[in-house]
Amino acid sequence: MQQLTVELGERSYPIYIGVGLLSQAQLLTRHVRAGQVLVVSNETIAPLYLEPVLAACAHLQVDSCILPDGEKYKNLEVLNRIFDTLLERRHNRSTTLVALGGGVVGDMTGFAAASYQRGVDFIQLPTTLLAQVDSSVGGKTAVNHPRGKNMIGAFYQPRCVIADIDTLSTLPEREYAAGIAEVIKYGLIADSEFFDWLERHLEALQSRDGEVLATAIARSCDNKARVVSRDEREGGLRAILNLGHTFGHAIETWQGYGDWLHGEAVAAGMVIAAELSRQLGWLDPAVVNRLVEMLQLLALPTAPPPAMSADRFIELMAVDKKVLDGKQRLVLLQALGQACVTDEPTMAQITAAIESSRRYTG
Amino acid sequence: MQQLTVELGERSYPIYIGVGLLSQAQLLTRHVRAGQVLVVSNETIAPLYLEPVLAACAHLQVDSCILPDGEKYKNLEVLNRIFDTLLERRHNRSTTLVALGGGVVGDMTGFAAASYQRGVDFIQLPTTLLAQVDSSVGGKTAVNHPRGKNMIGAFYQPRCVIADIDTLSTLPEREYAAGIAEVIKYGLIADSEFFDWLERHLEALQSRDGEVLATAIARSCDNKARVVSRDEREGGLRAILNLGHTFGHAIETWQGYGDWLHGEAVAAGMVIAAELSRQLGWLDPAVVNRLVEMLQLLALPTAPPPAMSADRFIELMAVDKKVLDGKQRLVLLQALGQACVTDEPTMAQITAAIESSRRYTG
Repeated sequence: MQQLTVELGERSYPIYIGVGLLSQAQLLTRHVRAGQVLVVSNETIAPLYLEPVLAACAHLQVDSCILPDGEKYKNLEVLNRIFDTLLERRHNRSTTLVALGGGVVGDMTGFAAASYQRGVDFIQLPTTLLAQVDSSVGGKTAVNHPRGKNMIGAFYQPRCVIADIDTLSTLPEREYAAGIAEVIKYGLIADSEFFDWLERHLEALQSRDGEVLATAIARSCDNKARVVSRDEREGGLRAILNLGHTFGHAIETWQGYGDWLHGEAVAAGMVIAAELSRQLGWLDPAVVNRLVEMLQLLALPTAPPPAMSADRFIELMAVDKKVLDGKQRLVLLQALGQACVTDEPTMAQITAAIESSRRYTG
Repeated sequence: MQQLTVELGERSYPIYIGVGLLSQAQLLTRHVRAGQVLVVSNETIAPLYLEPVLAACAHLQVDSCILPDGEKYKNLEVLNRIFDTLLERRHNRSTTLVALGGGVVGDMTGFAAASYQRGVDFIQLPTTLLAQVDSSVGGKTAVNHPRGKNMIGAFYQPRCVIADIDTLSTLPEREYAAGIAEVIKYGLIADSEFFDWLERHLEALQSRDGEVLATAIARSCDNKARVVSRDEREGGLRAILNLGHTFGHAIETWQGYGDWLHGEAVAAGMVIAAELSRQLGWLDPAVVNRLVEMLQLLALPTAPPPAMSADRFIELMAVDKKVLDGKQRLVLLQALGQACVTDEPTMAQITAAIESSRRYTG
């Protein structure tokens, strides 16, 4: 088992990464403060992994709340089901919410924990690669609004994150590949050595080799933890974690959440961001090609949806959180492993990059 | 104009109390960080006071969101209307929400500000006595759930509070009196000198004498600010502000929110708490009588609703946030001006106090 710490003063917490962790009861329960636990999961994950988690908490009052599976259910209405269960089962301020699932379950459970009785404890048990390397770490929680992704939420840190690699064995191929997109992101924004390593180990990673996987997850979490420690509430630096996300969110909103997976939209978004960085003369064209090749090997999208115009991108991106006083802020690459936040590109340059990314089709 | 500060390190903020403050534009706008403002108000208050607030922000993008008036609308569904407006009008992360109204508007606007894009600025312009002396100060925000009051919310501090005493002139008599109940609370829990002063000035206060009112509000805010500074997130001490509230919330839940006003339920709750303190031998019986007389002069309830059994109290109180591991925590009085949090009373003692409070009818 590997262990990292997200350093946030009194809100610091550990991330455990390894095999068979869900059946190590005390790993979970030593972070439970009192006698009540609510496990939140979804209809896909619960039949696979709920049992050992309930067993670990058998000496406590343990309840569960099983949500429908999918990003389209990440809204206030479904969130309210968590509150319903907490109140029906009389959970008090010392309860602990446990998120067992992917990013949607983690984001919703985290926001429920942030808001229930103005804040109770929560623990992340991420079961997808995307959640293990990204959404479970760093304390961003939210639900979607019909007009924009993650518009309603809180910064709220878990007590711990337990990433059991075994849970990835049941992950559908497409979701697994979408998770690798976020792993590659860390190489692009902050860790060129990791980018090189990933390129060399991409096939081992794709075949879910345990050792390679553990290294990739730990290195991703380590990169994320270092950024979050320096900028918990996204005052500046933390925004670099959003490489590809502003374009990606626009794609997801345009599709109405549920066509491409989040990581797939981010993959296409990273290509657009890299392409724009190249056009600005910041990024070596070879890096864009290396990125596109890696994503294509993983069968991830590398171009915007053909039917989505550049104008629709611009329009939907304007609603995103990265717009400050009318200027479009974007995360771009000054070099491999070196991201920056900028509002320098003009709308014409952004449009041009979207259009020229269309040539990167698999 | 009087000015106090709620001392909370980097989250410290001023409270301004005085006449004609709503028309002093710069008082508001110097706390607005960027170019967007959303004023949230309700159908009763907006026709009276929205105009000067919009005028103060005329050089900015200023939008408004007018909610229906009443505690029964303090729920997730109505909260979502604030998010709808923010997104329709494309408010970004640097926007400022302004709460113009009573406690319901303040609580909902504060929670919307805490949650919109994971947190934006907000300002309180309380227009009821209750909001000016209590809910606008201290950063507690929330909406209700059908199974319990204030069950979904956040601790989230405003940038400033502007309490314009002129707005109290249009306040209905019943609401005004309900606000005085919370003023009396500060005397009971922490300030016996203030309790004595209130007893002497109760008729002047009741007739809304400007000078007496300003003193009463400032002294109430000062008492609250000192408690909040020492315990922002209700780890312990802050709970004393809830004197009468555990009983009061049970009454409100039983009535389905909307029969008695919050301050009225708290008035009856304070009598029960004082009565229980007396029965435990902690509080001088004379204090209970002085309290009951003051409340009766204000035509406030001083006894539980006749049709509400002690069993219903116990049952509904168990869902409240003050229950920790099965023990009923209550705020009681060890003496006038000296509140404590305790789980000492047995259910039988609580029941006895509820029953014996029934004799205090006006």
